[in-house]
Amino acid sequence: MADSTPLLSPDWDPAAAEALLRDVFGIVVDEVVWKGTSASEKVCEWKEPEELRQLLDLELRSQGESKEQILARCRAVIRYSVKTCHPHFFNQLFSGLDPHALAGRIVTESLNTSQYTYEIAPVFVLMEEEVLTKLRALVGWSSGDGVFCPGGSISNMYAVNLARYQRYPDCKQRGVRALPPLALFTTKECHYSFKKGAAFLGLGTDSVRVVEADERGKMIPEDLERQISLAEAEPPSRSDFCIRVLCRSWSLPPLGLLFWGPSTPWKQLPTCASVADCGCTWTADSVAWNPHKLLVAGLQCSALLLRDTTNLLKRCHGSQASYLFQQDKFYDVALDTGDKVVQCGRRVDCLKLWLMWKAQGGQGLERRVNQAFALARYLVEEMKKREGFELVMEPEFVNVCFWFVPPSLRGKQESLDYSERLAKVAPVLKERMVKEGSMMISYQPHGTRGNFFRLIVANPALTQADMDFLLNELERLGQDL
Amino acid sequence: MADSTPLLSPDWDPAAAEALLRDVFGIVVDEVVWKGTSASEKVCEWKEPEELRQLLDLELRSQGESKEQILARCRAVIRYSVKTCHPHFFNQLFSGLDPHALAGRIVTESLNTSQYTYEIAPVFVLMEEEVLTKLRALVGWSSGDGVFCPGGSISNMYAVNLARYQRYPDCKQRGVRALPPLALFTTKECHYSFKKGAAFLGLGTDSVRVVEADERGKMIPEDLERQISLAEAEPPSRSDFCIRVLCRSWSLPPLGLLFWGPSTPWKQLPTCASVADCGCTWTADSVAWNPHKLLVAGLQCSALLLRDTTNLLKRCHGSQASYLFQQDKFYDVALDTGDKVVQCGRRVDCLKLWLMWKAQGGQGLERRVNQAFALARYLVEEMKKREGFELVMEPEFVNVCFWFVPPSLRGKQESLDYSERLAKVAPVLKERMVKEGSMMISYQPHGTRGNFFRLIVANPALTQADMDFLLNELERLGQDL
Repeated sequence: MADSTPLLSPDWDPAAAEALLRDVFGIVVDEVVWKGTSASEKVCEWKEPEELRQLLDLELRSQGESKEQILARCRAVIRYSVKTCHPHFFNQLFSGLDPHALAGRIVTESLNTSQYTYEIAPVFVLMEEEVLTKLRALVGWSSGDGVFCPGGSISNMYAVNLARYQRYPDCKQRGVRALPPLALFTTKECHYSFKKGAAFLGLGTDSVRVVEADERGKMIPEDLERQISLAEAEPPSRSDFCIRVLCRSWSLPPLGLLFWGPSTPWKQLPTCASVADCGCTWTADSVAWNPHKLLVAGLQCSALLLRDTTNLLKRCHGSQASYLFQQDKFYDVALDTGDKVVQCGRRVDCLKLWLMWKAQGGQGLERRVNQAFALARYLVEEMKKREGFELVMEPEFVNVCFWFVPPSLRGKQESLDYSERLAKVAPVLKERMVKEGSMMISYQPHGTRGNFFRLIVANPALTQADMDFLLNELERLGQDL
Repeated sequence: MADSTPLLSPDWDPAAAEALLRDVFGIVVDEVVWKGTSASEKVCEWKEPEELRQLLDLELRSQGESKEQILARCRAVIRYSVKTCHPHFFNQLFSGLDPHALAGRIVTESLNTSQYTYEIAPVFVLMEEEVLTKLRALVGWSSGDGVFCPGGSISNMYAVNLARYQRYPDCKQRGVRALPPLALFTTKECHYSFKKGAAFLGLGTDSVRVVEADERGKMIPEDLERQISLAEAEPPSRSDFCIRVLCRSWSLPPLGLLFWGPSTPWKQLPTCASVADCGCTWTADSVAWNPHKLLVAGLQCSALLLRDTTNLLKRCHGSQASYLFQQDKFYDVALDTGDKVVQCGRRVDCLKLWLMWKAQGGQGLERRVNQAFALARYLVEEMKKREGFELVMEPEFVNVCFWFVPPSLRGKQESLDYSERLAKVAPVLKERMVKEGSMMISYQPHGTRGNFFRLIVANPALTQADMDFLLNELERLGQDL
């Protein structure tokens, strides 16, 4: 190529970019911010997969499309997506739309940087430090460390890996084969990421020892003692090291925080699941906290908080890549926090939470959490007044587990096939509500319990009227069953 | 709580949300889309950490702030952040701003869903399938599997874990201790995530066998043979299984794709790093591809592509959580792809790439990549015409490694302290360019080579004028050295 030949015209036109972005933003405002959060609109527009494939015309071709076509595609994507911000989306541990968090996410996306060095993320390196400090203070720690992870499951894996490394620093270099057998104690009610993590981290799922839980899903301390003794007695002994994961039920109330302690005594914990009631102190060494759930910060916002002050994160995960973490920089390289993680590039996950917190204040977030608790309580009290609702148990948190008992099954609790028939109700109602688009509630079986609804009250936009709606809607959808 | 007492007013006002978001969006358009991409503005506004802390007022308090204060905070965050979309940001493997990708990211953020089930991500489950199929087709595979991961490092860990599981399915349950010793072959030029991954996955960094690379960073096949023989000879033999990671240099040109093959013969690969020239066929079993880099899709967009058609991903990572992957759903549960990954919640990373691809077409993306290659070539040719530039080697890709030789060192190549003095130049120039905000180029040492610049030509907005600017600017900044 001759250098005197001008190269292709640049692939950037700020006026065209602004025009496109303004139009797309307008679509987002109309279709998500307004319609997506309106109780009078559908929470989802159900299509069978084959039909949806046709409607979306997903194929990627060699020819580009016009701006009008692109805008139509954005409208179609939004139209056929589930509105997780809708007040009748009770399906997941996240829901709702916080405008400040969304604003923070739009700024984050436009700046498009990675969190690894102060050099390219000065604001976010300092901001993450402040947000983590504040979160740690809420769990009662005046010092420590932490990092945002790509989701709660990976936070949990980090925690297990850190525990392993803290006890056996050799593991990093020599691997699991050089260590005595390890065991990881948790209950069957814990999050499934512990089993996934045990496999991924090379420990194997067999290393997960299942401790008995009570009927509310809480670990039974005596059984933990027993499981530890059993592990100790196995040849070769597993007593040398126990990663202790105590956690609350994932499926049933209460749904609390997870923690581990490699070297500290365990004890049963108070429920510590929200900013509002996190005043407890305990002896855990780390906490995985997902502000993308009840705090509505937006996926993903997962903090792993550590009590450690010995730079454990960096020692455990660091590898000092010379092309990124140069030691002869002109600023304090301790601010290059990228070597704390096993990733290289790392998304900025602090701004959305920080901006929302600035706007709401701690008090605003506390009010929001308290409101969710109050509405969950209201819902439960209303259920008790109606014939067709049976609680799986009294909730302690914002997740309400219940059966809808249709007219044909009421008063038939003594029938031999009652449980079997009841278990078929939730899937039918779920199909009906999704196909009508009126609401979304998750269901699940649990142990010997047949399918029940697991409903999450988290959206800060919820009102009593939405609680009444969901009860009425279940009755309407199930009246012929 | 009496149910007749109205609960707190809802925490949602769509008009206020729209007003806030419109204002924030306006700031993004002015400060990022226009000023952030303008060559006449600064690429960064350097502040010392302590000063920046003060300027940002990061502290999170219990009282919330007014809309005006929040808007001022957004302006400050953008002002003091690095403009990675700026044409003079050559610092990372990502840069630039694609308006369609950004549009896709804004839609993604507003819809705020997780990729785990068809139920709550119908559009994105189907879309991810299409995007992965298309990416696989570009590497020459007409079938296979894949998934978007939270970054390239975790893609690489996935690949190693899958290889391990494919050869020893027992590993998932019984852990690394139940397997024969494993070895992972790669060069010292590979990405540092392989060592991080070996530690995280419980293999230990000792399991990484460093294969010699040639002067361009390419693996020397004969040394791979030798390393395998050495590993085989170790008691207990490591011959039973080799995870083979062949990859190109991360620091030096060429910078290509990574691949592994647990059961297939290895061979040296052609450079396969872009959409434009990916027509090669090879025998790898997986490819980690980051469209957030050269394709400017935005962080994060990391695909792990697999040749496997046996549902390896799901078998290796799955755990069938009953609360999420109910088997009695009213649609084909094969569409619930969440169990393919070790995460639970998973960000939507396909829309930004899909929308950009729809808008540009394959041809548009190809032109963009070709343009980056052409400009890198232009830059190299211009360097050769100037006195003060010395290439580390001829680039094959869009990363150009070079020393700037300041006037005082020109013609002094024979001096004993030449290399030592030359190595001090890049850090000084880097400090000057960052403090002036005129541009950002990364530097690094490499083996016996002292600090040199590693410059990435990836931003699709780049022109010849930007290449000339950076050469002139280096000369200006270094004229007194």
